[in-house]
Amino acid sequence: MISVEQARARILSGLRPLPSETIPLSEAWRRVLAAPVVARLTHPPSDMSAMDGYALRAADASPGAVLKVIGEAPAGHPFAGQVQPGQAVRLFTGSVVPQGADAVLLQENATRDGNAVRVNEAIAAGRHIRPRGQDFTEGDTVLHPGTRLTPRQIGLAAAANHAWLHVHRQPRVAILATGDEIALPGEALPAGGIVSSNSHMLAAMVRAAGGIPTILPVAPDRPDALADALAGGLGADLLVTTGGASVGDHDSVQAALAAHGFTLDFWQVAMRPGKPVISGYAGATPVLGLPGNPVSAAVTATLFMLPALAHLQGLANTNPPTATAVAGAPLRANDHRADFLRATLSRNDAGRLTATPFSRQDSAMLTVLSAADCLLLRAPYAEAADVGAEVQIIMLDRKEV
Amino acid sequence: MISVEQARARILSGLRPLPSETIPLSEAWRRVLAAPVVARLTHPPSDMSAMDGYALRAADASPGAVLKVIGEAPAGHPFAGQVQPGQAVRLFTGSVVPQGADAVLLQENATRDGNAVRVNEAIAAGRHIRPRGQDFTEGDTVLHPGTRLTPRQIGLAAAANHAWLHVHRQPRVAILATGDEIALPGEALPAGGIVSSNSHMLAAMVRAAGGIPTILPVAPDRPDALADALAGGLGADLLVTTGGASVGDHDSVQAALAAHGFTLDFWQVAMRPGKPVISGYAGATPVLGLPGNPVSAAVTATLFMLPALAHLQGLANTNPPTATAVAGAPLRANDHRADFLRATLSRNDAGRLTATPFSRQDSAMLTVLSAADCLLLRAPYAEAADVGAEVQIIMLDRKEV
Repeated sequence: MISVEQARARILSGLRPLPSETIPLSEAWRRVLAAPVVARLTHPPSDMSAMDGYALRAADASPGAVLKVIGEAPAGHPFAGQVQPGQAVRLFTGSVVPQGADAVLLQENATRDGNAVRVNEAIAAGRHIRPRGQDFTEGDTVLHPGTRLTPRQIGLAAAANHAWLHVHRQPRVAILATGDEIALPGEALPAGGIVSSNSHMLAAMVRAAGGIPTILPVAPDRPDALADALAGGLGADLLVTTGGASVGDHDSVQAALAAHGFTLDFWQVAMRPGKPVISGYAGATPVLGLPGNPVSAAVTATLFMLPALAHLQGLANTNPPTATAVAGAPLRANDHRADFLRATLSRNDAGRLTATPFSRQDSAMLTVLSAADCLLLRAPYAEAADVGAEVQIIMLDRKEV
Repeated sequence: MISVEQARARILSGLRPLPSETIPLSEAWRRVLAAPVVARLTHPPSDMSAMDGYALRAADASPGAVLKVIGEAPAGHPFAGQVQPGQAVRLFTGSVVPQGADAVLLQENATRDGNAVRVNEAIAAGRHIRPRGQDFTEGDTVLHPGTRLTPRQIGLAAAANHAWLHVHRQPRVAILATGDEIALPGEALPAGGIVSSNSHMLAAMVRAAGGIPTILPVAPDRPDALADALAGGLGADLLVTTGGASVGDHDSVQAALAAHGFTLDFWQVAMRPGKPVISGYAGATPVLGLPGNPVSAAVTATLFMLPALAHLQGLANTNPPTATAVAGAPLRANDHRADFLRATLSRNDAGRLTATPFSRQDSAMLTVLSAADCLLLRAPYAEAADVGAEVQIIMLDRKEV
């Protein structure tokens, strides 16, 4: 058995970020940049007014001064002439400040009378003007490769005049659930059978991580049928199986993979839940074999599949993001396997983030998994700890507490 | 001017959760349940083995005892007979425990010899058995309306035998950017013009919030052309405009809306950035008019558009999620407008979440907006505060620190 960290490093070492593709800006949310976004223009393009008011020379703006309004420049319609001493031009937010002017008098501080405007408050040069290039200058790198694009960054790419972006291709992940006992929701169940939940959960995890899932038909346990089913996942960026990986029956998935030239890297990780994890290659296709129990599948997918998908998308930080919390219940001493306790999150009286493990940690309990906010990490050989002890957690989905 | 809280309450009071639709489980990620998910079966369906080993009677399991192996029951292939005293049945993880047996002997604690198995360790009744219904029972409500579905909850719905789910329809949001000065990325720019960034940013925010955006063609400032452009957004679940809402030119959007029977609710909010926010109804279509400056648009969309989309989707908690942090820089006393400072997040030496505002808070700076992690909230008339003071923040996008 190898450690969780070793297992993750070995999985990632066999993967390379996927090549890039060109996509329209409107499809860019959550995609990962494969190339820098370089500003194609300077923003603002000129000195612009930040407010509604009057462009003038600050030297003219003594209280009581009356200036001649020589024109108006709505946003998008710059004033062609020059502002001379004693003159002003009516402006609006986003208007280009005309030549000669060096300040904007707020309309609240001005009294308009026909073609004249009276200054009610002195202003300093530069006031209410956004100088040309304040935000960025043509040639500036405004976004870097490896960035997963947020809505605001998409806005920035647009402002930098990019209608198309170069991003890493989304990982295509083939998902194969195995087992004679499982059936699709709504379909006929075999005796003592259960409904397949892992493939649907994993497909949603793949989507949430930015990948494109394909759910392969459920594979029965017969090696030849299993080998046929696995063939459907060859050529994917990642082939993920669930089930058929535990001590008693691990031969089924591995034997079936052998028909596709499988090279095993490892198949056991010192963790709980989820010890039976297979990693290797069916020809050129990376294969990740997860346990069949839903909680084990979710935990191992969080620890291994999500980092793999992050790496394939070109993200620099691929480790599951951890945070610090305090224990909401006493924790037992741990054995040689890293333990990932399903826990809820709350705030204790002192306002600290508090992770409280469920009393029932069975790896088949979907209700507990579904209600959990995070995994509470217990390192191998961790000593017993009391309520209030600092612990590391991995958030399972976003929750604000 | 009304407060941010009043404005939000008034916007939400005019909206109702959208009706439901039926979708396949595979499309359910991030959708919001409109009906409870009730278990259609009991899980596990029978007493099941949690491990690979042997089903037997615990009373027989004294160390050294030798039992007769009368059969094998792989997962999905239950044993038809009954386990009598002195007998055992070979089982695997997920196998149905046969009648008569009340414990599972781990294979690690058993020595197999032909049709006999020797017990190497005593076991208690019930050991390594997942009892029928441990996870849930037919008729249990396993998921509640108003839940935004996570991958794990999709797994639970599958296990409860649901291939289809009833969720609230996704809000269709029409987005209209106005202004003679703006052009689409890559298209010809007018003199002094800028590239339209708000509509692309807002469209991504709508997607991130679970809605479906439609970007309407950019509207020029002429009232008749603007009225024509607005017509394209009538019938949407929400019509969002940007620009044309400030003091000097607010008439343009409002006047154009008047052609569509606009009823104004309010058009100014005591906040910074973002004072000019229009809320009202064009006939039956809710309209939210946001400012044209990108930062103002992002902040007001976070405070008003996202809660509106949450409410339309049937989520119970619609307020922007806040968290507590400490100030990373001194904060000035605030005036009568709530202030939303763009800030970065980090951990200070004591490990506390620390929000540090950018020194440049200009509402046109997309680079600062794009680099921000959160908004630091300054209530109206908040007193000056020092480094380390507790502050409330709103996360702009997920970040782990």
